[in-house]
Amino acid sequence: MTDLQSYLAQRVQYVDRALDSFLPSAGTKPVTIHKAMRHSIFAGGKRLRPILCLAAAEACGGSDADALSAACGVECLHTYSLIHDDLPCMDDDDMRRGVPTCHKVYGEAMALLAGDALQALAFELVAKSRAGHRYSIGDMILELACTAGSLHLVGGQVADLEGEGKNLQLDDLRFIHENKTAAMLTTSVKLGGMCADALPEELAALEKFGMTTGLAFQIIDDILDVTQTTEKLGKSAGKDIASEKSTYPALLGLDASCEKAHQLTEQAHRALDVFGPRGQQLRQLADYLLAREY
Amino acid sequence: MTDLQSYLAQRVQYVDRALDSFLPSAGTKPVTIHKAMRHSIFAGGKRLRPILCLAAAEACGGSDADALSAACGVECLHTYSLIHDDLPCMDDDDMRRGVPTCHKVYGEAMALLAGDALQALAFELVAKSRAGHRYSIGDMILELACTAGSLHLVGGQVADLEGEGKNLQLDDLRFIHENKTAAMLTTSVKLGGMCADALPEELAALEKFGMTTGLAFQIIDDILDVTQTTEKLGKSAGKDIASEKSTYPALLGLDASCEKAHQLTEQAHRALDVFGPRGQQLRQLADYLLAREY
Repeated sequence: MTDLQSYLAQRVQYVDRALDSFLPSAGTKPVTIHKAMRHSIFAGGKRLRPILCLAAAEACGGSDADALSAACGVECLHTYSLIHDDLPCMDDDDMRRGVPTCHKVYGEAMALLAGDALQALAFELVAKSRAGHRYSIGDMILELACTAGSLHLVGGQVADLEGEGKNLQLDDLRFIHENKTAAMLTTSVKLGGMCADALPEELAALEKFGMTTGLAFQIIDDILDVTQTTEKLGKSAGKDIASEKSTYPALLGLDASCEKAHQLTEQAHRALDVFGPRGQQLRQLADYLLAREY
Repeated sequence: MTDLQSYLAQRVQYVDRALDSFLPSAGTKPVTIHKAMRHSIFAGGKRLRPILCLAAAEACGGSDADALSAACGVECLHTYSLIHDDLPCMDDDDMRRGVPTCHKVYGEAMALLAGDALQALAFELVAKSRAGHRYSIGDMILELACTAGSLHLVGGQVADLEGEGKNLQLDDLRFIHENKTAAMLTTSVKLGGMCADALPEELAALEKFGMTTGLAFQIIDDILDVTQTTEKLGKSAGKDIASEKSTYPALLGLDASCEKAHQLTEQAHRALDVFGPRGQQLRQLADYLLAREY
């Protein structure tokens, strides 16, 4: 196991244990909803957002324990959005990460409600965070609420839905990527920083890091969908073309897309300079996310 | 117009104007989601919860302006829960208050997302409230998150869904009523009190008032469904029996149900004693809610 692999495995365990303690037990009444929430929370997620949140807190000189509740909050928000995305009226997905989706196991009504309850839990967990001197719990809730709402996460989802089968412009595609993906990555690191009383320049660096990493990640995903085989990706290649999705390679061409991903990755790395050696974990995580072959 | 009617009409206008300013305009990108959110928010609600929230702030010696953002937050949370309740996988309702439901106008996916965005907005608006000396924004967010989550609002909904067509015991029915209805009424008045720096005994009185009013309101609803004609109710009478719903009259008998409603109404009124003359508006609202013929 490489250092990075063992670091990630240890972090996943740390986050999973905390999530287990924060979620009502599967025996809590009404039992079905808590089973449904736990089904999706423990369906094998990589815990990328909470791990980024914890690493951001450490980069700002805080301890991971300070950010653990907020880290679990962002994972609850992410999981709620996946449950709702998978519903028949949205992407209608039966499986996610090799496990049946929430509505396939518990039915649509219960999946809808499990997502709803996980969104509420996300806010509860952020509200239970340690507030520092610079940022109040109110600041942290506003950060999460703004990202979760109609201008970002939900707004990106809407733009994605409405863009299907259309020839989007680059600005539209950027809007989708920034809001569907990059906004939540950014909020994850910012909340970690806020729990650790980040200096204003540190918080600005985390924002820059989140946005560039999020956008680079999506562009690389678009590129891999074109250049890789299904076997290598571990998921169906060519899915974007098949579903008539607008992508960076389709709009910019493959070379310009690779160049764009490269620039963003460099910007993400440069944003971490302000942290010096303390930014090591975020640097490793950026490599993990962005240094894929393309 | 009676005093009460003109008071309510003035409050509805006050809340509606604030909601209009808090919601992104219908032209904000992505346009469809903001139209969908506004469709349901402005579909003719009575604004009962925000009006209770404002009245509770005034009962505690605060101004209505202090509680306006939180009041709009509880209305957003209530509206999100109605949008999701009306979806085909839940109650599958085409109309609400004479207006087509959100998914009938904007489709299921957009209605799902409009509900999701309104839940996030609810937390945003509570986080934008004025925090007093006794209660932090964190306290207020925890109050809302706990009520919105799997133990209360969502939990009551689940118990209601799972109870359909079954012979529920009184405890089960009470669980549904307390969590589906009374919990949000209670949180509405408690948030109003928190914005106005309520004394501990005032907050306890608001909690008592909310729970007893909420439960009495539901029992009276159950009674009216049996005793009144469709004409008088303005909605289909006998609906509970037709849909095999467990009700207080079915479990306790009509006389004992009336007695129970009467006791709870008295308790609700007594809870307001602590406020003296300042509790006048809450008293009027309790009369409006509970003094229906049965």
